[in-house]
Amino acid sequence: MTVPYKRLNKDDAVVLLVDHQTGLISLVQDFTPNEFKNNVLALADCAKFFNLPTILTTSFETGPNGPLVPELKAMFPDAPYIARPGQINAWDNEDFVKAIKATGRKQIIIAGVVTDVCVAFPTLCALEEGFDVFVVTDASGTFNDVVQKAAWARMTAAGAQLMNWFSVACELQGDWRNDMEGLANLLSQRIPNYRNLMNSYSAFTAK
Amino acid sequence: MTVPYKRLNKDDAVVLLVDHQTGLISLVQDFTPNEFKNNVLALADCAKFFNLPTILTTSFETGPNGPLVPELKAMFPDAPYIARPGQINAWDNEDFVKAIKATGRKQIIIAGVVTDVCVAFPTLCALEEGFDVFVVTDASGTFNDVVQKAAWARMTAAGAQLMNWFSVACELQGDWRNDMEGLANLLSQRIPNYRNLMNSYSAFTAK
Amino acid sequence: MTVPYKRLNKDDAVVLLVDHQTGLISLVQDFTPNEFKNNVLALADCAKFFNLPTILTTSFETGPNGPLVPELKAMFPDAPYIARPGQINAWDNEDFVKAIKATGRKQIIIAGVVTDVCVAFPTLCALEEGFDVFVVTDASGTFNDVVQKAAWARMTAAGAQLMNWFSVACELQGDWRNDMEGLANLLSQRIPNYRNLMNSYSAFTAK
Amino acid sequence: MTVPYKRLNKDDAVVLLVDHQTGLISLVQDFTPNEFKNNVLALADCAKFFNLPTILTTSFETGPNGPLVPELKAMFPDAPYIARPGQINAWDNEDFVKAIKATGRKQIIIAGVVTDVCVAFPTLCALEEGFDVFVVTDASGTFNDVVQKAAWARMTAAGAQLMNWFSVACELQGDWRNDMEGLANLLSQRIPNYRNLMNSYSAFTAK
Amino acid sequence: MTVPYKRLNKDDAVVLLVDHQTGLISLVQDFTPNEFKNNVLALADCAKFFNLPTILTTSFETGPNGPLVPELKAMFPDAPYIARPGQINAWDNEDFVKAIKATGRKQIIIAGVVTDVCVAFPTLCALEEGFDVFVVTDASGTFNDVVQKAAWARMTAAGAQLMNWFSVACELQGDWRNDMEGLANLLSQRIPNYRNLMNSYSAFTAK
Amino acid sequence: MTVPYKRLNKDDAVVLLVDHQTGLISLVQDFTPNEFKNNVLALADCAKFFNLPTILTTSFETGPNGPLVPELKAMFPDAPYIARPGQINAWDNEDFVKAIKATGRKQIIIAGVVTDVCVAFPTLCALEEGFDVFVVTDASGTFNDVVQKAAWARMTAAGAQLMNWFSVACELQGDWRNDMEGLANLLSQRIPNYRNLMNSYSAFTAK
Amino acid sequence: MTVPYKRLNKDDAVVLLVDHQTGLISLVQDFTPNEFKNNVLALADCAKFFNLPTILTTSFETGPNGPLVPELKAMFPDAPYIARPGQINAWDNEDFVKAIKATGRKQIIIAGVVTDVCVAFPTLCALEEGFDVFVVTDASGTFNDVVQKAAWARMTAAGAQLMNWFSVACELQGDWRNDMEGLANLLSQRIPNYRNLMNSYSAFTAK
Amino acid sequence: MTVPYKRLNKDDAVVLLVDHQTGLISLVQDFTPNEFKNNVLALADCAKFFNLPTILTTSFETGPNGPLVPELKAMFPDAPYIARPGQINAWDNEDFVKAIKATGRKQIIIAGVVTDVCVAFPTLCALEEGFDVFVVTDASGTFNDVVQKAAWARMTAAGAQLMNWFSVACELQGDWRNDMEGLANLLSQRIPNYRNLMNSYSAFTAK
Repeated sequence: MTVPYKRLNKDDAVVLLVDHQTGLISLVQDFTPNEFKNNVLALADCAKFFNLPTILTTSFETGPNGPLVPELKAMFPDAPYIARPGQINAWDNEDFVKAIKATGRKQIIIAGVVTDVCVAFPTLCALEEGFDVFVVTDASGTFNDVVQKAAWARMTAAGAQLMNWFSVACELQGDWRNDMEGLANLLSQRIPNYRNLMNSYSAFTAK
Repeated sequence: MTVPYKRLNKDDAVVLLVDHQTGLISLVQDFTPNEFKNNVLALADCAKFFNLPTILTTSFETGPNGPLVPELKAMFPDAPYIARPGQINAWDNEDFVKAIKATGRKQIIIAGVVTDVCVAFPTLCALEEGFDVFVVTDASGTFNDVVQKAAWARMTAAGAQLMNWFSVACELQGDWRNDMEGLANLLSQRIPNYRNLMNSYSAFTAK
Repeated sequence: MTVPYKRLNKDDAVVLLVDHQTGLISLVQDFTPNEFKNNVLALADCAKFFNLPTILTTSFETGPNGPLVPELKAMFPDAPYIARPGQINAWDNEDFVKAIKATGRKQIIIAGVVTDVCVAFPTLCALEEGFDVFVVTDASGTFNDVVQKAAWARMTAAGAQLMNWFSVACELQGDWRNDMEGLANLLSQRIPNYRNLMNSYSAFTAK
Repeated sequence: MTVPYKRLNKDDAVVLLVDHQTGLISLVQDFTPNEFKNNVLALADCAKFFNLPTILTTSFETGPNGPLVPELKAMFPDAPYIARPGQINAWDNEDFVKAIKATGRKQIIIAGVVTDVCVAFPTLCALEEGFDVFVVTDASGTFNDVVQKAAWARMTAAGAQLMNWFSVACELQGDWRNDMEGLANLLSQRIPNYRNLMNSYSAFTAK
Repeated sequence: MTVPYKRLNKDDAVVLLVDHQTGLISLVQDFTPNEFKNNVLALADCAKFFNLPTILTTSFETGPNGPLVPELKAMFPDAPYIARPGQINAWDNEDFVKAIKATGRKQIIIAGVVTDVCVAFPTLCALEEGFDVFVVTDASGTFNDVVQKAAWARMTAAGAQLMNWFSVACELQGDWRNDMEGLANLLSQRIPNYRNLMNSYSAFTAK
Repeated sequence: MTVPYKRLNKDDAVVLLVDHQTGLISLVQDFTPNEFKNNVLALADCAKFFNLPTILTTSFETGPNGPLVPELKAMFPDAPYIARPGQINAWDNEDFVKAIKATGRKQIIIAGVVTDVCVAFPTLCALEEGFDVFVVTDASGTFNDVVQKAAWARMTAAGAQLMNWFSVACELQGDWRNDMEGLANLLSQRIPNYRNLMNSYSAFTAK
Repeated sequence: MTVPYKRLNKDDAVVLLVDHQTGLISLVQDFTPNEFKNNVLALADCAKFFNLPTILTTSFETGPNGPLVPELKAMFPDAPYIARPGQINAWDNEDFVKAIKATGRKQIIIAGVVTDVCVAFPTLCALEEGFDVFVVTDASGTFNDVVQKAAWARMTAAGAQLMNWFSVACELQGDWRNDMEGLANLLSQRIPNYRNLMNSYSAFTAK
Repeated sequence: MTVPYKRLNKDDAVVLLVDHQTGLISLVQDFTPNEFKNNVLALADCAKFFNLPTILTTSFETGPNGPLVPELKAMFPDAPYIARPGQINAWDNEDFVKAIKATGRKQIIIAGVVTDVCVAFPTLCALEEGFDVFVVTDASGTFNDVVQKAAWARMTAAGAQLMNWFSVACELQGDWRNDMEGLANLLSQRIPNYRNLMNSYSAFTAK
């Protein structure tokens, strides 16, 4: 009953960003556009901050799905980038799986568009192959709440752990003292109320 | 722990459309009428597109429940059609189960009205008999969100996988290259934002 | 994996109505008052219609919690009626458990106020003692949606099946032909859209 | 106090469809994509059915805003079509206003994307020039409910009448007997529950 | 600025119930079916209780719209009953307007299905002719909240007063002492929480 | 067009608290019980803090409606207290109106249960007699959002100003320097986030 | 009846940003923190882009309310900045009103925290003095939707026009050709779906 | 299948209150501030009432996160109080775990801010070490409903039981007769509708 807690570890985690493309994102309706953009970039910030190997992939980026959002491309210029020629499930693309396995890591942090397909399918495959999978629910979007919750149920039943970008950041950080200023900067950019707390604090303690 | 991923396969799947009748649909309140109609027809489009054996059934169609919606009848003129004389659970009707077993397929894709009865009961029976069952949550409707979520919980606990019509389509397709134009047409009819992406793309690339 | 489907059976089911009291009901905020009243009486109608043994219990009915709603008392004049002197968990009251066991039935259909206490506690005890428990989610009310969903999660994890009064009615009925008019009358009283379908049907076919 | 009721009249009404473009529609978040598409096409159906002069206009259709949705272009091949070179408020475009005035009609039925700009600005101008303006709220979309309701308040305060496509259809029709079958067909295409009523009716009365 | 308060008066009010038909009610989605049924019957209860002249009308009741809901017919067997042969706006039917004027009353209490058409059109006509119009918002239903709120705005701008069945009852009653038991009975039937208060009160004071 | 701004003035305002009774409050469903209790007591705090004459009234407090909530009685032991023998509209009770007029004040701040009756009726009467009326929307409760918004529309059309307890407090205070600590204490009791700001501030500046 | 349309004009408009302080913003609950931050900064972008005179004011910024959010201070380093010593209504501060009048402009664009106080009070005063006031609803925040809508009603009744930052931008711009790239940049920063359209467009037309 | 029901027991339970700090609470958006404050204090009331050992901990309380809310400090002056120097997961702090183990208790009742981090991380660790963990969902807050539900799923999958403060109170109390007045007082302070029931009861039975 008491299985060990599968805890994210920055030395064993790899981040997969799947199909965050300029066209596909118009399908996302379970988050407002501003919330979703902020969450996706926040997860990317975490990948950078913790130096996690990160893998980018797109589906038909030369068609209506559109290119990867340029911010992600810019943040990870040297990351493996797999423009899939047709496979809907990224796990069906050999290069993608190879790139993951090449990292030697067993903890997969995944987010994408849309949740029920581009996230769920590789999640189910990765679990089957023995990876631990951490789905970043708030950086993954889809058509509506019914589809979101059904996809969550399918992935949960298969053993995926549901997380959000903030809990990913905190579990990887472990202790504020590892880099207090770095984490504070990241949170200040992505959580307006946290930024406000910091600004109030600075103002009050400066007196 | 790492059981194989139960993945939909167009050679092993059969579609059951249960009690989408003109009267019963007025009971559906967990989707707007337009969303529900679109989702049901989209699932039917998938069944056609992938040439899946499809089985139609109705409950008391000569009474207030009303006839099957004519679009479904028209789309599947040669499908087994079981007008049940009284069994609420379609699985209690021998002809219905025979029709399923005659297909030799073990993956059941099911949708119907209402979710907690016409979908849940045969789902629980099919799971008991060893079928894999994929419930299409957005093509199945019921009284309200409380009933929907309770029915989902009951079916999930018994091993059903919750999906939506779009993830069914994508899992069956596997690779866009299997028939890019066909799938694009299907999505264009049923997902307005996808249609808009395609039309923008055509306009821009025509220049 | 393929455990038998636990299906409600009118010869093996007993109904527990827990603490539907005139005062306590003012705590229920996860349903509107009209919806909740209708659902509770619909479940009571089912108990009557299928001649299920039914057990009533109240908590401190002489205090602010108030008496059992009179409609329930009137519908089940001969049912075991346990006015608990203090036990919050009805299962802690020997008379209540004795009354259940006296029926010899192993399927418990339970509803009450509030879901997280008066329903959840006896549900967890009954499951522990080997009963099958079917929680009627829409005839059970509590403070808000967060509490409702947390209570559902706790009961589901322990093996309870979540249902609603309509799916209880349908699973017990099995086949419309067992008593078509009786069930139609019941549904007509409690589901306005069903009543409308019947009235339209009568009008149209009378021509 | 008792001013005459400004009632839509098919001999005095003109329909303005403003900026329903494939790109801009991705900004609409106060309706689901399916609902919005259905409402816009339903309003177009009304314009056709009542032979109302209809004027189409777009904003920068050669840029990211995208082309007019093809269905509208196809439905009104001979309608004045003003591709505005830059004016955000269509009323600032002389050709647009000329086209309206050329119809000699004083009742403007308007819908567009986005409500707070493309609908509100010409509405306020038209009211100022003495037109009666009927805003079709459900065929006009914008960013969210706050923006929608603020735009409604601004237009209402200036004398616009808020309507929806169905009430436009009914006010123009006046009497079912003017063309019962025609209106029934239109409603059957756009209101699934109405279609179901008709199909139930046909089935029942055919007996 | 200080115009006299237009207060409902049981000697000057007439009730119009417009198109509460078994088919049309399936279009109502801005209230749950149970809430809507309860509200409509509660308004009818008020008309009976205060002996208000009541006029019933239907639209094409021999077609898919279906018959008037039988409860209303049964409650007002002697009321003027105008089955309109085709006019969508009941005010366009001479018999309907004659029946209203025959009562000699100037305060119109109106409810119907759907709000934006069957309620709004006669409301606007009646206001134009100098009647005071009190729209019973919760006994009038339509497609969704957007349509509801747009229809409210149009009617309010024209001078209609928005009410609900409970405020109609209370304004007509004026003083509980006019018939305390009668009003209490009415409220007990239609407001579950009020019924519970009464039952708790009876139980406590009986001690 | 530019009428003077009707601004609350602590020397010209009187507070009316209408029917906040232990039974009637169970009818309030447009606020959660905790929010509503907090808002009502906050408004009472304001009346105390600004020394506004305050008038309490109840409807049938010896019946199921129950007594005035004890907190209000305790806060205003010397306030005029009119237990109405039967008038639903408090303005129909001579003692109530006399008590208001005895204050010589022309600005009425009113809140009560339920909004559409106990607040709306006296509001409409007071406006008719030339008072300025400020309805405290968040200290007034009723059955649901539809009823709330309809009542707001009726009162707004008659000239009432819609406010909330916080804006009442701020408009009466005018300048923080009139009694900074007093107002801060009041807000700290009733607005948890304000309390947190103050506590953070104290902690940070104490360093 | 046909009063001239009050249209924003960049030569006659002044922007007031009231009390967007790091502490006070924690009171805002009618927008998510991300949406609110984005909207406020978007409005500030507009003020910069159109070179509108802009006036900043704060309430007790040395206390728990906290300093002005630093972004606003940084964007408008030379703007009049009135740190009010105690006046809750900024219009009660002579320096603030002087600063507005010094601009010689008659169109006030206002936003602030909280809507019902810091926005509503100066809005009502400005209207009384003959200014045209345009309330930017989505850059103004408050406690909840009830308070928001009540504040809107009070301001609308007094003649304020409700807008949102996007409609402000579009009405001031008038014609895209005035500075297409500038406006496109602004929208791309603040509307993720617009940014996506632009990025898709660039990708497609680059081919 | 029938594992024993893990029932809270006041002799085996310990309460952990994690990071309810004046700054951090501004991040909580899945409850209104009033509801959240009430729930947290209600849970603290339970800890006091049942004399449960209670452990307080904070994260960086000298920084922007702010101090523990003073009410909690005041209620548990002698409780172990661990101001963590940097560990995000309280379980990573040896003093915290030692304090728990020093109680000798195996049932952990936990609540905190934010749910997905400060509650979820120690919950997962405690489960791994064999504790039974009862998460008090309504005294734990986070960014939004998506994050809340994802965190619930992760904790449930690991074996945590989801509860709410009221069910914790009731399960610990067991029987009203253990201290009827004490529990009644607690509920009266925290559940307004319960308080109203008690006050009505007292008034009615005093007659």
